[in-house]
Amino acid sequence: MLVPPSYRRLKRGPQVILPKDIGIIMAYTGVGKRSVCVDAGTGSGWLAVSLARACKHVTSYDIRDDFLKIAEKNKAIEGLDNLDLVNRDVTKSIKEKDVDLVTLDLPNSDKVVRHAHKALKPEGYVVGYLPHMEQVKKFVKALERYSFRNVFTIEVIVRDMLVRAEGMRPSTKGVWHTAYLVFAQK
Amino acid sequence: MLVPPSYRRLKRGPQVILPKDIGIIMAYTGVGKRSVCVDAGTGSGWLAVSLARACKHVTSYDIRDDFLKIAEKNKAIEGLDNLDLVNRDVTKSIKEKDVDLVTLDLPNSDKVVRHAHKALKPEGYVVGYLPHMEQVKKFVKALERYSFRNVFTIEVIVRDMLVRAEGMRPSTKGVWHTAYLVFAQK
Amino acid sequence: MLVPPSYRRLKRGPQVILPKDIGIIMAYTGVGKRSVCVDAGTGSGWLAVSLARACKHVTSYDIRDDFLKIAEKNKAIEGLDNLDLVNRDVTKSIKEKDVDLVTLDLPNSDKVVRHAHKALKPEGYVVGYLPHMEQVKKFVKALERYSFRNVFTIEVIVRDMLVRAEGMRPSTKGVWHTAYLVFAQK
Amino acid sequence: MLVPPSYRRLKRGPQVILPKDIGIIMAYTGVGKRSVCVDAGTGSGWLAVSLARACKHVTSYDIRDDFLKIAEKNKAIEGLDNLDLVNRDVTKSIKEKDVDLVTLDLPNSDKVVRHAHKALKPEGYVVGYLPHMEQVKKFVKALERYSFRNVFTIEVIVRDMLVRAEGMRPSTKGVWHTAYLVFAQK
Repeated sequence: MLVPPSYRRLKRGPQVILPKDIGIIMAYTGVGKRSVCVDAGTGSGWLAVSLARACKHVTSYDIRDDFLKIAEKNKAIEGLDNLDLVNRDVTKSIKEKDVDLVTLDLPNSDKVVRHAHKALKPEGYVVGYLPHMEQVKKFVKALERYSFRNVFTIEVIVRDMLVRAEGMRPSTKGVWHTAYLVFAQK
Repeated sequence: MLVPPSYRRLKRGPQVILPKDIGIIMAYTGVGKRSVCVDAGTGSGWLAVSLARACKHVTSYDIRDDFLKIAEKNKAIEGLDNLDLVNRDVTKSIKEKDVDLVTLDLPNSDKVVRHAHKALKPEGYVVGYLPHMEQVKKFVKALERYSFRNVFTIEVIVRDMLVRAEGMRPSTKGVWHTAYLVFAQK
Repeated sequence: MLVPPSYRRLKRGPQVILPKDIGIIMAYTGVGKRSVCVDAGTGSGWLAVSLARACKHVTSYDIRDDFLKIAEKNKAIEGLDNLDLVNRDVTKSIKEKDVDLVTLDLPNSDKVVRHAHKALKPEGYVVGYLPHMEQVKKFVKALERYSFRNVFTIEVIVRDMLVRAEGMRPSTKGVWHTAYLVFAQK
Repeated sequence: MLVPPSYRRLKRGPQVILPKDIGIIMAYTGVGKRSVCVDAGTGSGWLAVSLARACKHVTSYDIRDDFLKIAEKNKAIEGLDNLDLVNRDVTKSIKEKDVDLVTLDLPNSDKVVRHAHKALKPEGYVVGYLPHMEQVKKFVKALERYSFRNVFTIEVIVRDMLVRAEGMRPSTKGVWHTAYLVFAQK
């Protein structure tokens, strides 16, 4: 189960961060009602919307208006008033200050590490969502350059089980990989 | 990484639901600031505390005072005022009404399905945290008896990657299994 | 990669034991040029043919002539003369004696455990290929009844990696489950 | 189960290729009684011994006499007369011709690809056992330079199941990674 019922009402663009990765990002960083987050790029806005559902405020950056439009629809579907969807290039700068969490899903997230460092409050988290191992290595190197602490990289696998009166077993096929998640603390 | 930095300040009793499972429970049910939750048994309270961090209100039941004491400490560490930790037997009844989520981590969670059904609002979720396959089958059978919809069972695997200048690879050893998660909607 | 080039010349019926499971069965039981094996049911004969490629002699039982015909073709393709494909019901008896390995891929493999025990030489192995957990439990129970030793159950997962100049990562989708493998020694 | 009973009689040096990887190497390349193999480095000789158990002849190269001594003991334990353990540097050359399989477990296996190409018969296989992602990329690049075909990379995961009258479940902890396996055909 990669798209549980609570996400089925949302619009889905060509790319989306799945609930399996969203859940781990949120639990591992411990964000909640007091947290202020910055997210980039917005994409379909599934992560931004999920963060806004649980956090105080979320700003999500994208440079593509077509993506921001999908995300606006998802914001309306969820009835959220604490999510700002902005057309801004996060590789240039992050305007927000004293942020608890910066989430990055970009081909060049390593270029944003210095902006994330500036935007975060002490002990705040940056999380990179990175499909390829080469991106992970570059991102981790950038984190080390800015002296981030507690750097770790994981992958999240959700496996379906078939349960019935007779014949319980894991499902035959499934998704093996979306992206590596890299976490670090200022 | 099974216990990320944001959980390291919490006390840990003999048994605990890990952040990997907590994150998936929260993302898959879509709970947030408007959600009211019931949780049982409390155990060390990691799930209850995590739910309270993001939700409107959480009530967590346990019949063991020693567990409730650990959970009270964790509630204080997190500075939460929307979490009620109560010594009450959830297999007898759930007093709360119009609940968005009921989470169950008990050896006999199948005995609580009818109480969960009564407590939940329409489309509300019940989630069972069940280490063994036989428990999963019993729980799913009980869910079907009470006409729960969208029943699905998953396992969540978080795998660590070693990242360094040269020699990226998955870590040699790790945790393979905590429990199956069974989700269902009223 | 579930069907490597060396298996692509073989005919494939509706059901087949994949090379990932074949390899583990052969390595874990340590069979080789001195080993005599009994296999049932034959199915498409991939396991029987693989055993015959490395072992002294293999007898494979099936009750369906259509399956045995596919297996005969595969025997011819591999040019094997040490593989007997026989139409015989293995749940009735195993005629061979002093066997090193008995492999079972049947819905009711637990019914063959007593025949396997009789056919095996001391320290010989029986291996069950069992898709469902209920079958595993029944099979293990039967093994215990006949005092088999070193009983263990595993699942074998082969995951593909995409390797290219830039963008190494696990493949997005794949096979999660074929069957559990249960091993035991007389 | 990573070291099944059939391997427990063997001596084990500091490093060893486990039966899970040995089984997949042998099944995926389809080697058997007619096959001639070259293996390097020998290490504890578990792969060389396993190949010799099923194949016509195996030559295994190592430059460390202490490793070759362990392997000689394992050869004696298995009673094999078709395994030559030689102190020779495989990065210099492979003397054998018309080989069916070359297996490489070296820090710099990419340096041996050209010797493997020369030693292999048409459609013969080379397999690299490579713990790190960077090694995989280098090895694949070398394979492409020598026009190897059907190049693919996998990882093999064997997961233990606990089976008992009540309480079947995957084991809590286990081994997540040994090495990636890269296969290619001349």
